Amino acid sequence: MKERRHQSLETAFLAEEIEYTGAELRSHFVREKSGIEWDGVVAFVGPCGVSGERLVDLEDAEEQHEIVSKRMLHFIAEHFQQPLREGNVRLRLFASIVKEALEAMSPGTLVTRDGDDLYVNKRKLTVAICTASSLSTLFHYGVNVNPAGAPVAAVGLKKFGVDPKVFGVSVLDRYERECESIERAIRKVRGVS
Amino acid sequence: MKERRHQSLETAFLAEEIEYTGAELRSHFVREKSGIEWDGVVAFVGPCGVSGERLVDLEDAEEQHEIVSKRMLHFIAEHFQQPLREGNVRLRLFASIVKEALEAMSPGTLVTRDGDDLYVNKRKLTVAICTASSLSTLFHYGVNVNPAGAPVAAVGLKKFGVDPKVFGVSVLDRYERECESIERAIRKVRGVS
Amino acid sequence: MKERRHQSLETAFLAEEIEYTGAELRSHFVREKSGIEWDGVVAFVGPCGVSGERLVDLEDAEEQHEIVSKRMLHFIAEHFQQPLREGNVRLRLFASIVKEALEAMSPGTLVTRDGDDLYVNKRKLTVAICTASSLSTLFHYGVNVNPAGAPVAAVGLKKFGVDPKVFGVSVLDRYERECESIERAIRKVRGVS
Amino acid sequence: MKERRHQSLETAFLAEEIEYTGAELRSHFVREKSGIEWDGVVAFVGPCGVSGERLVDLEDAEEQHEIVSKRMLHFIAEHFQQPLREGNVRLRLFASIVKEALEAMSPGTLVTRDGDDLYVNKRKLTVAICTASSLSTLFHYGVNVNPAGAPVAAVGLKKFGVDPKVFGVSVLDRYERECESIERAIRKVRGVS
Amino acid sequence: MKERRHQSLETAFLAEEIEYTGAELRSHFVREKSGIEWDGVVAFVGPCGVSGERLVDLEDAEEQHEIVSKRMLHFIAEHFQQPLREGNVRLRLFASIVKEALEAMSPGTLVTRDGDDLYVNKRKLTVAICTASSLSTLFHYGVNVNPAGAPVAAVGLKKFGVDPKVFGVSVLDRYERECESIERAIRKVRGVS
Amino acid sequence: MKERRHQSLETAFLAEEIEYTGAELRSHFVREKSGIEWDGVVAFVGPCGVSGERLVDLEDAEEQHEIVSKRMLHFIAEHFQQPLREGNVRLRLFASIVKEALEAMSPGTLVTRDGDDLYVNKRKLTVAICTASSLSTLFHYGVNVNPAGAPVAAVGLKKFGVDPKVFGVSVLDRYERECESIERAIRKVRGVS
Repeated sequence: MKERRHQSLETAFLAEEIEYTGAELRSHFVREKSGIEWDGVVAFVGPCGVSGERLVDLEDAEEQHEIVSKRMLHFIAEHFQQPLREGNVRLRLFASIVKEALEAMSPGTLVTRDGDDLYVNKRKLTVAICTASSLSTLFHYGVNVNPAGAPVAAVGLKKFGVDPKVFGVSVLDRYERECESIERAIRKVRGVS
Repeated sequence: MKERRHQSLETAFLAEEIEYTGAELRSHFVREKSGIEWDGVVAFVGPCGVSGERLVDLEDAEEQHEIVSKRMLHFIAEHFQQPLREGNVRLRLFASIVKEALEAMSPGTLVTRDGDDLYVNKRKLTVAICTASSLSTLFHYGVNVNPAGAPVAAVGLKKFGVDPKVFGVSVLDRYERECESIERAIRKVRGVS
Repeated sequence: MKERRHQSLETAFLAEEIEYTGAELRSHFVREKSGIEWDGVVAFVGPCGVSGERLVDLEDAEEQHEIVSKRMLHFIAEHFQQPLREGNVRLRLFASIVKEALEAMSPGTLVTRDGDDLYVNKRKLTVAICTASSLSTLFHYGVNVNPAGAPVAAVGLKKFGVDPKVFGVSVLDRYERECESIERAIRKVRGVS
Repeated sequence: MKERRHQSLETAFLAEEIEYTGAELRSHFVREKSGIEWDGVVAFVGPCGVSGERLVDLEDAEEQHEIVSKRMLHFIAEHFQQPLREGNVRLRLFASIVKEALEAMSPGTLVTRDGDDLYVNKRKLTVAICTASSLSTLFHYGVNVNPAGAPVAAVGLKKFGVDPKVFGVSVLDRYERECESIERAIRKVRGVS
Repeated sequence: MKERRHQSLETAFLAEEIEYTGAELRSHFVREKSGIEWDGVVAFVGPCGVSGERLVDLEDAEEQHEIVSKRMLHFIAEHFQQPLREGNVRLRLFASIVKEALEAMSPGTLVTRDGDDLYVNKRKLTVAICTASSLSTLFHYGVNVNPAGAPVAAVGLKKFGVDPKVFGVSVLDRYERECESIERAIRKVRGVS
Repeated sequence: MKERRHQSLETAFLAEEIEYTGAELRSHFVREKSGIEWDGVVAFVGPCGVSGERLVDLEDAEEQHEIVSKRMLHFIAEHFQQPLREGNVRLRLFASIVKEALEAMSPGTLVTRDGDDLYVNKRKLTVAICTASSLSTLFHYGVNVNPAGAPVAAVGLKKFGVDPKVFGVSVLDRYERECESIERAIRKVRGVS
């Protein structure tokens, strides 16, 4: 059986540094920054500071949290015409992929997943949120590089000697292959009664 | 904010041993065996032997594979009114959960995930498939206990000194909490533009 | 077969009185007022005055109606990831439940339903609307307690000696059980050809 | 604003008597018997006897119930491309309509609804089930005319002096108008935030 | 088999001339102008001038295009509760219908379709866009009558001696019948394995 | 903006001749014959003879039609996880593409479309049907090459000197580009209010 490549989504690592303020979690940000005209994920490095109205996570907003980190590796994904429930399942899977990529790149580091959050030695490595526009679901996944300023005990990629760009490209590639193989999986089964 | 428990699915570990032949991957098997009247997952221990028409995975059927294992821990899940694409994303997440449960119970064991399959030292630990009935999506997830008879290099829970019942209950509990927290997540976000 | 309770939605009767102006028909109002983190319905008592831009019912807006009532029992419901068509069918069912609850609590009173509206002796007992946010469907159901100020012939619970709180709790309980039993119903049938 | 009639479904009362055995709950039965080429409901009178494999209600099947009634007014509905959850909400609404039609035609009779079942003085008036084919959702709603043979305490339309044909036509007409007005309702609201 | 007419959508040709600025592509514009309370399409004649924020087509917006035409025949359609993907397939079909109507009315004219655009002798005849509100999908289809001012080589109905009103009514009628026959088609097939 | 190719479906022209009997309209026929593991369309040449149970079109079955043609160019398409309504809109668009391809290849030939059927001089050129499996929608589109045996006035590609393979490849290519550009279109628009 011939093997052809079908991308169900496209990815890009952005050269420029961008501060993540929450405003970036909007429809077509991926397209604007990368020219991707398909479902897509972009990764980039930059500080993180989200507060007030831009906290789309109501738990954070209700408790007047701020999300702060001096330097993060950010991922923003947009899947069009995807229900929010599927988007949230996909985000958990993305968290698993980030965990697996770090375990592969930093042997011996034990990463624990709790929903969409990752921890190393009970220190928080990531922030994550999935929401919907009227056209798509979107998620932001932030991995600390240098967590200075974070309001909780936190840890970053720097601590493990992992380069954010190399790491980001690895995660993008794993997620792209995962999404494609899911598309293949729904087309290779018989139905049952 | 008060914390109430809402089960989005129910689980049960079955006392009886059952051979998995592929015929069990059908709508209402979960209900018949456990009395669960909701979305649900059952786990049980028993041999595995699937061949011919019962291979719903067309890749296996086309290559006339057989799925054989002397003793497996089986999971069968049924989610009603769920699209098959979401079902497959959920199955990948279930595979991540099985990996995480084994890493927690057998410290030092490195488990690798490739789609819905798990490996330890390149030996296959699991079999997995997700399909649809006209009412639901269903998945079977089989974890080798003793992989004798498997047609490929395989490994089982026995090798790691992990008890299948204790392990099965742990996976059921993790998946139940994961599904509930996904339901909570889709209800706690602001939409974006 | 064991009988377990699965809430498909949660309800709360709010102690505080709140005026309904139309602005309350928005995503997460239920969560804000009750702490419910699931699909939910809240009930409360207060005046009603909706006009202008806040009339989401275009028939009302086009005819420059106002919705006014001195004292009403209000219900606001939010179901996430639910299509608007299903939301409207559910609203009609909610109207039936209100009718049944009043018939049970005020024997001999004949309540007539016309779509989502209820009447007693051709006098209007209720107002109702169902709409969508980008995350959910929402409905408002208002039952007159004292309809003074209403622009049409109207009647209220006071007339029947029915206490709004006792009545509201009864409706919430009936709707909660109805929604749960619908979830059970979709999981207990064989498909047909 | 002009008022035009848009049928969202079509109905027919069948002249011939037909025994309901369960086999009639299949896709295109409505079309075959009535020529309706749209979503539709047919009503007809005949005995009822359902057992064994034809019990699509698993609760009945598990307890080896039989559904028997000497003479019933039957309704079979088919809605294409409708999710089963919406189908079940619609069935509850249909049950409310049957209740309302009987109350209108037999003043003073108190009908109680419990999910999709109706009772008069704790005697069962109806049987109901909603299921799915791969193309549609279908429901059967049976109203006893003469419940002789029923395995539980039952009552029929005959007892109330209600003619099954007149009653059936009234229910069909109410349901047709209800479905049309739901379609109108989803098109006349502003969205909210 | 009896033949009954079921309108799945309603259409109207508006007597007044209206300039199309992009702001008309919004939910309930069809209802406001025509009183249609169902899925609907309106047609009208008027100039066209769209620029800046009102360009919902991001390709146009990114390249700072303007859409200008001295006189156009405009169609605005709104289908409620329709996914955007289906909306776009429907728009392509609408473009085919416009092509067919022109070929019928101006024999010998060869019209070429490229996606949702039509050309005669490589000159652009039309502009088209499909988008979503939170309640519906909407499309605008503009056919040049007199393309003066268009930024590309363009052609209009005037050139072919085709009256815009006669043409518009013909297109509305063809689309109405097409949509109805699609509804009929999904209800007249057996499912397959 | 960079231009990358994303196939939303894959196509293949089959070298072998295959008789179309109706049994080919089933899930995974495309995969079995071509190895395509994605949404796909295959084309092939062969006789056509469909009758009895294999007529999935109920209008044909009710009138005991037979579909016969000595030699046809057949297309079988399978789109996974696609609603039947969208499938039928897509089939109409496919019919438009076949019309356009013939007009391009046989200049001066006037092809008329009526729903999913094509005619030349009131003689039938095609047969078409769209149906659903539990996993996908499927369509068969047959274009007469030599219509000998057809029960109605018919015409074939041979008459126009059009080679079925060249023609089939052209249609496959047009449809593949159309489907891809639809995917692009749903990702390049702003939502509206």
